[in-house]
Amino acid sequence: MAPDQLSATLAALADPTRRGILAQLALGDATVSDLARPYDMSLAAVSKHLKVLETAGLISRSREAQWRPCHLEAEPLKAVAGWIENYRRFWEGSLDRLESYLQELQKGDPDGTKN
Amino acid sequence: MAPDQLSATLAALADPTRRGILAQLALGDATVSDLARPYDMSLAAVSKHLKVLETAGLISRSREAQWRPCHLEAEPLKAVAGWIENYRRFWEGSLDRLESYLQELQKGDPDGTKN
Repeated sequence: MAPDQLSATLAALADPTRRGILAQLALGDATVSDLARPYDMSLAAVSKHLKVLETAGLISRSREAQWRPCHLEAEPLKAVAGWIENYRRFWEGSLDRLESYLQELQKGDPDGTKN
Repeated sequence: MAPDQLSATLAALADPTRRGILAQLALGDATVSDLARPYDMSLAAVSKHLKVLETAGLISRSREAQWRPCHLEAEPLKAVAGWIENYRRFWEGSLDRLESYLQELQKGDPDGTKN
């Protein structure tokens, strides 16, 4: 996945309505009307969000059926997960440091500086 | 993490320069000048990117030292990883379907429709 594609995916995900649409599609394919129902939004506004998701490759739309159901595409999400996995050691490392700090507190060292 | 915070994090990550800055900070704390070096960018432009990362909580900056070194903060990345984990079954599921399709091909069913 090219860096630009990753940026497009992350930008598309940076919106709670679009993440809500993906969560709805995780339950199964849905039409624009289905997807608009939980939101106080026009079909045009929902269609605009779908266009962003489709451009980012996060959804595909059938060209066969008249109602063009939307389908969740996992590949860009997998790419984001793969990218973020590089940083896992940082939060796991932080947790190690926190545990070490808590152990020092139990030993009566309030600043955790004895190590 | 509030939904808006997640959106802010994803928006901050949706830029290759900002992801490059995070990758550099993964190697250790760095100053604005250190971070500007790999890019053909002014310190002002880099500072603007740092402000976006700082607002999203992805970096913190020391207020003590005059050169205010930047530090990678793992917590927002962990939140993104946690959110995306909900979708893991989709790409793992897709792989299952791909494997099933390949098995059908080996059995001589070119469309994989016999299951």
